[in-house]
Amino acid sequence: MGHWDGFKGTKWRDHVNVRDFIQNNYTEYTGDDSFLEPAAPSTDKLWTKLQELFEVQHENNGVYDMDNNIPSTITSHEPGYLIKEEETIVGLQTDVPLKQAFMPFGGINMANNALKTNGYDVDEDMTKIFTEWRKTHNQGVFDAYTPEMRAARSNKIITGLPDAYGRGRIIGDYRRLALYGIDFLIAEKKKDLANVGNKVMTDDVIRLREEVSEQIKALNDIKEMATYYGFDVSQPAKNAQEAIQWTYFGYLAAIKSQNGAAMSIGRISAFLDIYIQRDLDNGVITEFEAQEMIDHLIMKLRMVKFARTPEYNELFSGYPIWATLSIAGMGVDGRSLVTKNDFRILHTLVNMGPSPEPNLTVLYSSRLPEGFRTFAARIAKESSSIQFENDDLLRANWGSDDCAIACCVSATVMGKDMQFFGARANLAKTVLYAINGGVDEITKKQVGPKFRPMTGDKLDYDEFIDRYKDMMDWLAELYVNTLNVIHYMHDKYAYEAPQLAFMDTHLKRTFATGIAGISHAADSLMAIKHGDVKVIRDEDGLAIDYVPTKEFPTYGNDSEEADAAANWILEYFMTQIKRQHTYRNSTPTTSLLTITSNVVYGKATGNTPDGRRAGKPLAPGANPSYQDGKYLGEKNGLLASLNSTARLEYQCALDGISNTQTINPNGLGKDDDTRIDNLRNVMDGYFDKGGYHLNVNVFTTDLLLDAQAHPEKYPNLTIRVSGYAVKFRDLTPEQQADVISRTAHDRM
Amino acid sequence: MGHWDGFKGTKWRDHVNVRDFIQNNYTEYTGDDSFLEPAAPSTDKLWTKLQELFEVQHENNGVYDMDNNIPSTITSHEPGYLIKEEETIVGLQTDVPLKQAFMPFGGINMANNALKTNGYDVDEDMTKIFTEWRKTHNQGVFDAYTPEMRAARSNKIITGLPDAYGRGRIIGDYRRLALYGIDFLIAEKKKDLANVGNKVMTDDVIRLREEVSEQIKALNDIKEMATYYGFDVSQPAKNAQEAIQWTYFGYLAAIKSQNGAAMSIGRISAFLDIYIQRDLDNGVITEFEAQEMIDHLIMKLRMVKFARTPEYNELFSGYPIWATLSIAGMGVDGRSLVTKNDFRILHTLVNMGPSPEPNLTVLYSSRLPEGFRTFAARIAKESSSIQFENDDLLRANWGSDDCAIACCVSATVMGKDMQFFGARANLAKTVLYAINGGVDEITKKQVGPKFRPMTGDKLDYDEFIDRYKDMMDWLAELYVNTLNVIHYMHDKYAYEAPQLAFMDTHLKRTFATGIAGISHAADSLMAIKHGDVKVIRDEDGLAIDYVPTKEFPTYGNDSEEADAAANWILEYFMTQIKRQHTYRNSTPTTSLLTITSNVVYGKATGNTPDGRRAGKPLAPGANPSYQDGKYLGEKNGLLASLNSTARLEYQCALDGISNTQTINPNGLGKDDDTRIDNLRNVMDGYFDKGGYHLNVNVFTTDLLLDAQAHPEKYPNLTIRVSGYAVKFRDLTPEQQADVISRTAHDRM
Repeated sequence: MGHWDGFKGTKWRDHVNVRDFIQNNYTEYTGDDSFLEPAAPSTDKLWTKLQELFEVQHENNGVYDMDNNIPSTITSHEPGYLIKEEETIVGLQTDVPLKQAFMPFGGINMANNALKTNGYDVDEDMTKIFTEWRKTHNQGVFDAYTPEMRAARSNKIITGLPDAYGRGRIIGDYRRLALYGIDFLIAEKKKDLANVGNKVMTDDVIRLREEVSEQIKALNDIKEMATYYGFDVSQPAKNAQEAIQWTYFGYLAAIKSQNGAAMSIGRISAFLDIYIQRDLDNGVITEFEAQEMIDHLIMKLRMVKFARTPEYNELFSGYPIWATLSIAGMGVDGRSLVTKNDFRILHTLVNMGPSPEPNLTVLYSSRLPEGFRTFAARIAKESSSIQFENDDLLRANWGSDDCAIACCVSATVMGKDMQFFGARANLAKTVLYAINGGVDEITKKQVGPKFRPMTGDKLDYDEFIDRYKDMMDWLAELYVNTLNVIHYMHDKYAYEAPQLAFMDTHLKRTFATGIAGISHAADSLMAIKHGDVKVIRDEDGLAIDYVPTKEFPTYGNDSEEADAAANWILEYFMTQIKRQHTYRNSTPTTSLLTITSNVVYGKATGNTPDGRRAGKPLAPGANPSYQDGKYLGEKNGLLASLNSTARLEYQCALDGISNTQTINPNGLGKDDDTRIDNLRNVMDGYFDKGGYHLNVNVFTTDLLLDAQAHPEKYPNLTIRVSGYAVKFRDLTPEQQADVISRTAHDRM
Repeated sequence: MGHWDGFKGTKWRDHVNVRDFIQNNYTEYTGDDSFLEPAAPSTDKLWTKLQELFEVQHENNGVYDMDNNIPSTITSHEPGYLIKEEETIVGLQTDVPLKQAFMPFGGINMANNALKTNGYDVDEDMTKIFTEWRKTHNQGVFDAYTPEMRAARSNKIITGLPDAYGRGRIIGDYRRLALYGIDFLIAEKKKDLANVGNKVMTDDVIRLREEVSEQIKALNDIKEMATYYGFDVSQPAKNAQEAIQWTYFGYLAAIKSQNGAAMSIGRISAFLDIYIQRDLDNGVITEFEAQEMIDHLIMKLRMVKFARTPEYNELFSGYPIWATLSIAGMGVDGRSLVTKNDFRILHTLVNMGPSPEPNLTVLYSSRLPEGFRTFAARIAKESSSIQFENDDLLRANWGSDDCAIACCVSATVMGKDMQFFGARANLAKTVLYAINGGVDEITKKQVGPKFRPMTGDKLDYDEFIDRYKDMMDWLAELYVNTLNVIHYMHDKYAYEAPQLAFMDTHLKRTFATGIAGISHAADSLMAIKHGDVKVIRDEDGLAIDYVPTKEFPTYGNDSEEADAAANWILEYFMTQIKRQHTYRNSTPTTSLLTITSNVVYGKATGNTPDGRRAGKPLAPGANPSYQDGKYLGEKNGLLASLNSTARLEYQCALDGISNTQTINPNGLGKDDDTRIDNLRNVMDGYFDKGGYHLNVNVFTTDLLLDAQAHPEKYPNLTIRVSGYAVKFRDLTPEQQADVISRTAHDRM
């Protein structure tokens, strides 16, 4: 059978256009989950073996084994297998399962520290090569940083900057490899190269020409890598197995050469379903075999590992790599993009149990078929392992029904967009800088500009707002320019050729910033305005504590005023972000997302005027504060909290708004069917109101307390923390405590 | 004694300002050469040893020994010595005299080819490192080149592009190391870094910040390198020996880390004389010792070697490295900058015999003291090893009396200017492209744009000029953009940190282009206009030969019309060059300079309308044609030739106008004194008329014929070829033949 036999449509044949291929060929599925098949024997064997390895890895602080002297590239390693004869989909990052590759291009220090802190030897030759001869991204960044940038970084007003490893978040459209084969893609890139620039060689033209040449080299390398596993990917995939395998090879090239924080695989579900459905229709495979291949693919994504340092693990707890896989969603023609494959992919959480990776993401709409919505709600309730994003907002704001999520909540159009990712600014801490004239409340250093501080015993709202705006102006400028340095150097020293090779040559680039502490900032504004906040100062007159003396509205309780304060901060800060020069004239966006770094950020943030205590974790992402405090906390139940979050303006936070909720099963209803129906209805309502994202946890705080006390009982307990899922036992003690302290709604 | 004891002036003390130091402290010398001392015993021993090594090197095709696995950096090698106990000035490129370092950063292919073609092993690890992990300048360039650029390069309409090795020509102001010491320079660079950019991180700001950081690293490395030789260069030099040594260490760092075509040392004569004179005045050293140290410094410059490929040697024959050292010149205050040291430096050609390196360059003016002019004329006559540049033009056009020559004829202000160097366009060949509508007359390929060709049996002048302009427009654009790619990549992959560390952070950058074949282009214009040129075509109608049937004026014979034609071409082409976008907004310049590449360029140039035969060497630089031909050649003697060259407009060729002349001793006068006086007078007149440059050879063609037949008799016969000097025996046979065929004027 020819590779394209039976496929419909024409436009996708001559030029790369995966979306057109999907739209012409996918089979919407509106039924329920009754067709699903259990795990195949091969899956059980592989998964059992993998769990043994995971156990070893867990015993060794998340490290099964590490390379120290093979700089990881697309072709650096011999082929590796879990159990070769059982695998229908093959390919590992290194030659041994779970072995972490040596990735020095982002930074030799981080690579070596990961080795040292995990008890491995540092290789002297490699250190010499990547110090004296081959400069890394990290070195480049620190060569260009200003003292102000370093101070902002070390005082943690800006945190999580990807300046020591890969920036990640770039999703290649790996489906292209399956649909077209490498040779076609190389030919297309060569055509593109011929038309990059018209005679005049500006720096931008030269840079892009070099990049496209690097992409072509990467494509050739992928062809070679595939031969190690016995495959010739020069031509399009001929069947489902090849389509899955080719797609995975594309992704594998990315994770062999980049250790970005988030290495997402994108939206592959309906695409692969087309191949599976063709094979099913032709009697070439059975549903049982289809599920087996999908299980094996997902198992590969559960195995992705990067060498990390303790500092990194503290920030992003539980070894996440954000192999985010987006499913479902609506088409612009009104059909949903739900296929049987979306069921199969969620079903992996049943066949192999819950798992943090891949970061399964449902692009949700109340118009998705009810069978799927019900199934997704059930899997969410049972696994606490999946997240939901508002597909109606995605289509409306990104102009495409082929979006995928990079990392947690960051939308990108497959093959068309790339993102310059970068960290977040702590706007709760900025409240304190505004009050103290740029002096850090923890380190007592002058970090921000020497603006006039607030000197009275009480905080005047107008005086405060004036200063807060000044300080946000300063921070936005500094932050964007810090990221400008990072992305310049990343392109220079750690360019993501294998990802970009699967994307259009002329891309839309977004410049993603991030905000931490939005709820504390908003609550502080409300406290200052309504709470008659008394200021307590240290011997140098620095404000170090605040006592609200009157009640004030807070974000997360369906208060229009408090929610408007959060929106005002978001909009004001985003406006300042937009004023800046951005690298490669990329489009600035921001997110309300902290991942698990809310703990570290909170540690570095003093007492805030809303009454939040110094050092306590910030509420993650856009979550309302759950800190104890006379006037704080979500007091009005789940729906009030969701209403507040849904009020946040997505157009001001196009990089995403993260919302993590935990619901006590009993709060959802008395029996499972009721709970599932209620959860689905809650989501329909939340997303219809404009809520952007929901991490769904369904369990009780007691369960977590038991898991904290008896981790051995819960090796696979998986929870959604903030845009991703983790195994509870892999969280740091501090983060376990934070998660436990979060609100578990026991009422709607 | 404190390092600055006895020095006058104030401005140079707080900020880097070497010129101010010189102006306040140098002692003009207006006497004759009677104070000069002969070679010291140490000099004789060292020179004898070095000549033995040179002999070995000569036997081995210019290679004494080669590294293959130590990428050369400032600190890569253990200290090396010729005869340690005899050397007053120390420091070698590698650990062994004349051993060529392994320099892969410009291009691993060129580095490996140099090894292979000289019979050395290529190191596999190095190849892997500099192919897979550490990209080189060469790879970057070829990733970004367009097919048109490659075609222009391989068809040799543009040649000598520095795209496979270092671009060179950047002169650090190494005197700064002696005057200030490393610590002060590092502190100043740190101050600069703090002020590069003001918050907004554009690509330009980021790039410069990274570069200054690299410069600071290089300065620290130089400090370390000096310790290998037992010196602490953190503080300023305390005496003459340290001043010479420190200055040389700065230069040594450059030649350890860069293999640029031209690695010049700049203008160090008056500067070092200040230290020597202070030591002489204080009775610390004698003149004999002063000459010994200068001899030893010059000997070090005679030893500089780079690993090269046969192709490179064919282009730049005789292993030149252009350790150009500029001396004399006038000050803007009317004093000359001639010191005793300018005598000492020329006197090295007596003490150690003639030598091609360093490329000794006298910045000439008829207002220099007569004693010096006479001495320089004598040394030129006796050694044929030095060149002269018009210092009056330099001061008037570069606004400084602290200029130096980079390479052959390219002016730069010490520490203030840097040059983006790049090759040359063949404007003689462009004449043929204009006639044949962009089809290459040798390869028959369409290289230029498909402009209308000339189709008749005769060449109409107006039709031709129209087409010639079109073709120059195309070539200028392509050429500049090719260089834009090269310089972008060189900054990216082979940045010259140790040179730039000794220069101002905010530099003036010139963008140097070059023109080859100016005389043949001008003569062809005259032939087409006046010579009734018949066209001979091949079977495809391509014009392949030209027969002028009438006499026409030619360039080099004091014909105002022919000289104006040369000027018109120069000005027209330069105007087109100036229209282009240049990398880093550098200031475009051009040169009339071919070095010895005139032979290779000529080989790639078909018959020209002036009657020049295909394949014959072009006249070098701005030299008039010396090819036999009914109407060609310099027929009117030396002065007519010089008059023509002097008419070329330096303001249109600020990168320099190279003119090489050979004079039969008898043509200059009957006895030595007369000859010296006449040579001096000729130069006074030539430079006063606006001539820019003169390579002076004084010998007969018979001498060269004898040297060609009996090379063993003339191991040290040195001649000026085109902006530099070579040992005659090191020229390729073709180039020996070319030099012999050049006009040796036997009359004034």
